[in-house]
Amino acid sequence: MRELAVGIDLGGTKIATGVVDGEGHVLCRIELPTLAKEGPERVIQRMEESVYRVLQQMDLSLADLEGIGVCVPGPVEAGSGVVKNPPNLPGWQEVPLLSIMREKFNINVQLENDANAAALGEHLFGVGKGIENFIYITISTGIGGGVIAGGRLLRGESGGAAEIGHMTINFEGPTCGCGNRGCFEAYASGTAMARFAREGILAGRKTVLADLYKKEEVRAEHIFAAAREGDEFARELVEKEGFYLGVGLANVVNAYNPRRIAIGGGLTKAWDMFYERMLKVMRETALAASVENLEVVRAVLGQDVGVIGAASLIFH
Amino acid sequence: MRELAVGIDLGGTKIATGVVDGEGHVLCRIELPTLAKEGPERVIQRMEESVYRVLQQMDLSLADLEGIGVCVPGPVEAGSGVVKNPPNLPGWQEVPLLSIMREKFNINVQLENDANAAALGEHLFGVGKGIENFIYITISTGIGGGVIAGGRLLRGESGGAAEIGHMTINFEGPTCGCGNRGCFEAYASGTAMARFAREGILAGRKTVLADLYKKEEVRAEHIFAAAREGDEFARELVEKEGFYLGVGLANVVNAYNPRRIAIGGGLTKAWDMFYERMLKVMRETALAASVENLEVVRAVLGQDVGVIGAASLIFH
Repeated sequence: MRELAVGIDLGGTKIATGVVDGEGHVLCRIELPTLAKEGPERVIQRMEESVYRVLQQMDLSLADLEGIGVCVPGPVEAGSGVVKNPPNLPGWQEVPLLSIMREKFNINVQLENDANAAALGEHLFGVGKGIENFIYITISTGIGGGVIAGGRLLRGESGGAAEIGHMTINFEGPTCGCGNRGCFEAYASGTAMARFAREGILAGRKTVLADLYKKEEVRAEHIFAAAREGDEFARELVEKEGFYLGVGLANVVNAYNPRRIAIGGGLTKAWDMFYERMLKVMRETALAASVENLEVVRAVLGQDVGVIGAASLIFH
Repeated sequence: MRELAVGIDLGGTKIATGVVDGEGHVLCRIELPTLAKEGPERVIQRMEESVYRVLQQMDLSLADLEGIGVCVPGPVEAGSGVVKNPPNLPGWQEVPLLSIMREKFNINVQLENDANAAALGEHLFGVGKGIENFIYITISTGIGGGVIAGGRLLRGESGGAAEIGHMTINFEGPTCGCGNRGCFEAYASGTAMARFAREGILAGRKTVLADLYKKEEVRAEHIFAAAREGDEFARELVEKEGFYLGVGLANVVNAYNPRRIAIGGGLTKAWDMFYERMLKVMRETALAASVENLEVVRAVLGQDVGVIGAASLIFH
């Protein structure tokens, strides 16, 4: 009989839950709204409900599972499994999610932050397969990362290792959501791109984005689209994005010396527009010996990375 | 019978070799000049000679040893044990030191870069004892580091992990010896302090260091001494040094989430002058959850750290 686990990807807007087999295939998947503002108790009830619903759909019971893996959009205290205060889950402060879930289900439950889980998922079932020193980085509204070092997830003392998005790349730079200045995330996330666009527009730069800005919020995807159509200001922003990504990746390379880096998240939809510049800057900036055999590739698990990553906590 | 190993600390100016017991005590120690300009072959001969001399002094033979550990001032390729081109050993390019030493001695030989070996030495026998997530940082002419993660030395794919000195803290900053801009080392090493002093003096700053500069090279120790005596410019430099160290440490914290960081190297002689500012900036800059239980302390193995660290490669 094949191994099965349930993976729960708790996000700021939705809870995605799936049954995953030991080869990383998602056999069944549902989504419920998170409705974070209703508070932890109600959200956890919906997580519980989602598990029973996927089990029912496949005519399974808890006894058929190796366990339940859960990933959350924020820091998890290693060991205790207490969820600290994730910015995307207002009202969650020090929620002992691991022990609550273990009590509810009385089977093996594992918990990680989403970037770590995604790194493990890509390591077991995606582009990190068989790569002992592997890093997964997600670039979307924020920047997160997970590090596999010597085949093991790098957690650090309390689960706070690999906070790649909050490594300083310019201590004189813009203020980040974390309070620090010049974090990688404050330069290279989709949110940062949008902020740079807004600043340029308000400073009077000629760009098609200026017209858009009057009607709606300018997002990274608009900038990439405008750059494709030849808008000069948008092209500059994309050029800078490649530079910032290159500098941030170089820090990652000098910190961990990985064999392969996989990049996921929303911004990879425009992969072809920043890849070359990012790679060039990374190679110029990082120590030569560490980039010699390094590969930087797109992550492959796509929108299922959360569910598969969560389940991989059980299969690891 | 107690375990014994020989540790060889190959430096740019001297070779320090000692017999170390399984509790990290240096039982006997000699120093020979490196004379790096004579080339790898002659230097390796002196390393060999140093081993036989310490053995003779203690009336031991190779058979009494668990092995020989060697540390070198530059990158070592993990696995192959090839020494890349250390800036302090001119003429050393791709020297297969590990296999040469193994052939010469025909016993267990281990090789690491000096910062990694020092981290392991402090982890086994110093302030990192029993600390599973521990980081050693040396601040002198350069900045180096070694990371113990989950009780194991973090090497990365080819031995290039934990290149802490070359993590970017300001991509618009001064050029570093590695070719990159704004490395931690380019801001916070003793060499960087001296450069900032020189720049200020040449820009006409009033300081006692200006008189010194006419006679000899201004070094970090002069700056600390002048600051102690109330020199305003020197105080500014020390204040900045604390800031840069704090920013660099915060990067280290966000990358590895250690339980304890030990700092060694020449600049720690002025520990009391930068410690408070460094710690304050680090705490403000790093993610709050990761600094909660973090300790930053001085390394304790002192000038023996190289010999003990090298020997600890055998005891690990």
